[in-house]
Amino acid sequence: MYSHLSNLRIVEGGSFIAAPICGLYLSQLGAKVIRFDQIGGGPDFGRWPKNERGHSLYWEGLNKGKKSIALDLRKPEGRELAVRLATAPGRGNGIFLTNYPVNGFLSHDNLVRRRPDQITVRVMGWADGGTALDYTINAAVGVPQMTGQPDDPRPVNHVLPAWDLLTGSLAALSLLAAERRRTETGAGEEVRVPLSDVAISTLGNLGQIAEVVTGGADRPRVGNDLFGAFGRDFETADGKRVMLVAITSRQWSGLLTALGIANDIAAIEADRSVSFANDEGIRYEHRDAINPIVERVVSGLSLVELGSALDNEGACWAPYRTLRQAVSEDPALVADNPLFSEIVHPSGSRYPTPGYAATIIGAARGDVEPAPSLGAHTEEVLTDVLGCSAREIAFLHDRGIVASAHTERGR
Amino acid sequence: MYSHLSNLRIVEGGSFIAAPICGLYLSQLGAKVIRFDQIGGGPDFGRWPKNERGHSLYWEGLNKGKKSIALDLRKPEGRELAVRLATAPGRGNGIFLTNYPVNGFLSHDNLVRRRPDQITVRVMGWADGGTALDYTINAAVGVPQMTGQPDDPRPVNHVLPAWDLLTGSLAALSLLAAERRRTETGAGEEVRVPLSDVAISTLGNLGQIAEVVTGGADRPRVGNDLFGAFGRDFETADGKRVMLVAITSRQWSGLLTALGIANDIAAIEADRSVSFANDEGIRYEHRDAINPIVERVVSGLSLVELGSALDNEGACWAPYRTLRQAVSEDPALVADNPLFSEIVHPSGSRYPTPGYAATIIGAARGDVEPAPSLGAHTEEVLTDVLGCSAREIAFLHDRGIVASAHTERGR
Repeated sequence: MYSHLSNLRIVEGGSFIAAPICGLYLSQLGAKVIRFDQIGGGPDFGRWPKNERGHSLYWEGLNKGKKSIALDLRKPEGRELAVRLATAPGRGNGIFLTNYPVNGFLSHDNLVRRRPDQITVRVMGWADGGTALDYTINAAVGVPQMTGQPDDPRPVNHVLPAWDLLTGSLAALSLLAAERRRTETGAGEEVRVPLSDVAISTLGNLGQIAEVVTGGADRPRVGNDLFGAFGRDFETADGKRVMLVAITSRQWSGLLTALGIANDIAAIEADRSVSFANDEGIRYEHRDAINPIVERVVSGLSLVELGSALDNEGACWAPYRTLRQAVSEDPALVADNPLFSEIVHPSGSRYPTPGYAATIIGAARGDVEPAPSLGAHTEEVLTDVLGCSAREIAFLHDRGIVASAHTERGR
Repeated sequence: MYSHLSNLRIVEGGSFIAAPICGLYLSQLGAKVIRFDQIGGGPDFGRWPKNERGHSLYWEGLNKGKKSIALDLRKPEGRELAVRLATAPGRGNGIFLTNYPVNGFLSHDNLVRRRPDQITVRVMGWADGGTALDYTINAAVGVPQMTGQPDDPRPVNHVLPAWDLLTGSLAALSLLAAERRRTETGAGEEVRVPLSDVAISTLGNLGQIAEVVTGGADRPRVGNDLFGAFGRDFETADGKRVMLVAITSRQWSGLLTALGIANDIAAIEADRSVSFANDEGIRYEHRDAINPIVERVVSGLSLVELGSALDNEGACWAPYRTLRQAVSEDPALVADNPLFSEIVHPSGSRYPTPGYAATIIGAARGDVEPAPSLGAHTEEVLTDVLGCSAREIAFLHDRGIVASAHTERGR
């Protein structure tokens, strides 16, 4: 992890993807992130994928480098500890990241009573507090209806939880903006980041709401074609599939040269009285003529021949791979990528594990830290953040209000 | 826009989605964002969707609230102006957001010569500088192979440019982290955010790299099922389609009650000696038995009947819609959503337009600003940021080194 945010401590009470990945990004930038969970694990503690011993690879991927404290949140005393953690005194404290309900015991109003300059960043489903997940929001805003082959009317859910990921990163951005303002003005605030608003505003930012409002009709499903430019999947002579794209003029000219199709394309341009060179939209309008020419040439070349021709001309392309192939066959992605370190996780499994996605030139990346075992830092957090004595901690253990990693393992 | 970052000025030289949406997020949080473009528009200036007058709805969606200056970047004098803008003196200046190549005239080294504490945030394709777009990166990391129906082997490209969006938001997060550090230490730095690293690290964060490395095999394609829990699309009696999900115990019990299938499910549990209540993974393993029961009940109810039963129990679901339906039929998304304002854009079109996706409670949202016309702020920026005199500006115009919106419209 980098050290940029090392004077911030963020308390995270959240589960699944959006809130935890927000905490992960901040942790990878150096913030101390303390995640509290129900004793025995929150609702995401067993989420698939799991390894052969039944440990969640998902949980340990999303909680790397955090500290873990296990509380009984069903007991008033456990809830009181969560509130005290979220609102701990000190300059870098008083920052709470959560997906708990707006009006529960972790409401911003409750926290502000303890700490007037409290910052609360709350990930939500629907903006009105209604239950939603990435998959239901995606259905509600129309993306599955745009996705997939036009010869198959079924909606296609995305497998990448894009709205969760974007919500998590915007929550982190919002958190830093709020903390910056608190440093300047002394004032805290609550920021709410609903999946529903992230999704619908994104479609607005991409011009798609304008498109349906001004045009009236939904964009027809176009399969694997890239809307508004040249781009599609094609199959090579050896049965591999590649994604070819040409949005810029340079990508287009590179593609024509690499495939040796400049004359065929010029003939279409002459025939149809158009020019493809500087307007990618016209390439899209005439894809019925362009695609078959590309298809013919690609189908006559092996993947290696095609790739070498495309790379020589700086064309924009990639082979389709499975994730396993991507990990094992392209060293640039994982094996030789300085983002990744092979470390052992609480699951007992050892595998390549990424640090922060961006690279800060000249700054030390630091080690990639594994996720904690559940409750691994219960004593440490109670001592360091809340100033509890050994006797108080023993009392909390005896009453079952907290649990340590040792206790958790014995469950 | 909010006012949190109003003492920051960010110069943006970038095109397409990732860099511009990074600038958009920062602008929505109050930063002054100046986008410079080649006279006549950058490579994204005509990107689809367009309105009926040929104006890009995409460009104006991604550049809302920015100032625009048009330069001839092919001329040394135009490039010099770009460098001077990026490195302008003053506390909130010297922050450059770009997707220009690492080693060109806008290299960080070149900028640091003008301003030692320069911050440069650079969005990239491949981490080594190779050309890539969202669609090619997605193919390279394996997501299209996981997406779509298992009865159709074709890869499915996503239509949502998820990697661009996530790269843009992480670029904004990284920029604020770098600016925070500069305030503390006085030091600037370059941050590089490659689409390739964002994509592969995300699959790592979600446990999917661990899954293929520890398990050896790629996850089979599961169509519209939610991996590792209960969730799928179902069709109602009136031919509508809904996405039903139950990850948490509460979502599961709500679903059973709403559909009145508790007894049928209990019979499966007894038959197979399992319990679905507290382990969503077991629901996934037995979806062959669960899905037909849900299918039967859903297919006997209209969308209205089903929705009302599900809402009464707080179940997690949504209807599938097209985007046009989402905009016109669900007032919570657009019509009644305080994020949106209906404003007129440079395209001449008027449509609902979103502000920042997160809501900062108690802070004024301010107006949603339209995108600028190309070159609308050329004189203003030259005067305010670079201190050019009217005579110098006239000279730049005469030499064709800059253009104003007026000149641009006449083209």
